[in-house]
Amino acid sequence: MRMAELSAESGVPVATVKYYLREGLLFPGERTSPNQARYSAAHVQRLRLVKALTEVGGLPLASVGAVLAAIDGDATPHETMGVVQQELAGPPPKVSGEAAEWAAGLLHELALRHGWKWHGMEDYTVGNLVAALATAKELGHEKLAERLDEYFALAMRVAELDVEVVTGLTSFDKIIEAGLVATVLGDRIFTGLRHLAQEFVSREVLNRAP
Amino acid sequence: MRMAELSAESGVPVATVKYYLREGLLFPGERTSPNQARYSAAHVQRLRLVKALTEVGGLPLASVGAVLAAIDGDATPHETMGVVQQELAGPPPKVSGEAAEWAAGLLHELALRHGWKWHGMEDYTVGNLVAALATAKELGHEKLAERLDEYFALAMRVAELDVEVVTGLTSFDKIIEAGLVATVLGDRIFTGLRHLAQEFVSREVLNRAP
Repeated sequence: MRMAELSAESGVPVATVKYYLREGLLFPGERTSPNQARYSAAHVQRLRLVKALTEVGGLPLASVGAVLAAIDGDATPHETMGVVQQELAGPPPKVSGEAAEWAAGLLHELALRHGWKWHGMEDYTVGNLVAALATAKELGHEKLAERLDEYFALAMRVAELDVEVVTGLTSFDKIIEAGLVATVLGDRIFTGLRHLAQEFVSREVLNRAP
Repeated sequence: MRMAELSAESGVPVATVKYYLREGLLFPGERTSPNQARYSAAHVQRLRLVKALTEVGGLPLASVGAVLAAIDGDATPHETMGVVQQELAGPPPKVSGEAAEWAAGLLHELALRHGWKWHGMEDYTVGNLVAALATAKELGHEKLAERLDEYFALAMRVAELDVEVVTGLTSFDKIIEAGLVATVLGDRIFTGLRHLAQEFVSREVLNRAP
């Protein structure tokens, strides 16, 4: 298909498609004349993916580039998902002092208890978790942390479901893409469901007048 | 305490404290002379809360203002949490067409099946969920949606835990603040735990070379 059709099919404006081509977020089409190229269904899918990552996932374009480079590389699906997670988490806010040490200790113990690999504070996922837990403590709301084991047990069940959804697919390319979709959209979807569930569960308890 | 001490205690720079005072994000101190005021522990806590919402929660200042106005108002905890959820979700990206209709239908059925109130597409939580599900379908990864009931069942268990943590507190003011903390930080914490769990669960399955 031509550029105009690619744009219509993917819902991405022509100027944006050209920008993505220049930035390397979209691979070039097959050249048919000095200033024309032919694009395929793979181009449509890639544009939809970029749109999903930016519009629904809220990722900045630089992170989208890093994620796509990981997808296109020859890393294993597991390594690729590692890159995706780091980009999604982003660099954590700085925390230090007693609360930060307490939070790091708590999480390290959790890791030891469950036998997962401890990546240390340089890992963005770990760093952001520590920042959130330390902030809760500083606010005097560390009760959340007392139930961390229960939250983690539920997170494990969600992750098992995620992996089941993703590995039901046959090709490795599809699995990596599905892993990306499951992570980026899956985070949004689960958070939304949790909010709906919170409203449902708390209606009785929290609806008394103050 | 004086302004300098308030700044040191909360970790928020003096210029930022003054800006928050002007913007109404922080209530004024008790005036002790024409250009001096005395601040209390409540001011420190409020500044820590603003910091948590912006730095860890990633909320823009306008949303922080709306959330604090809701907290300070005389709505029930349940209504207050409704405002918090809308601000956290933000306006959804525009989706339309077949995929959007499919996603809205799916979610509406889920609501009917579980007996929760259907707020319709104007609700930001619902709108964002529909956008994420529709995007997954457009990308050909609607398998996620086939397991929506299972995801929702787990979200219900997380929400039950959330409400338990929050309602263990005695005063209504504390409950509202804890609800805010549990939602803003709780979303970050659960997403982080899910990512760690995904890595743990998928190590075996996804670590084969492509």
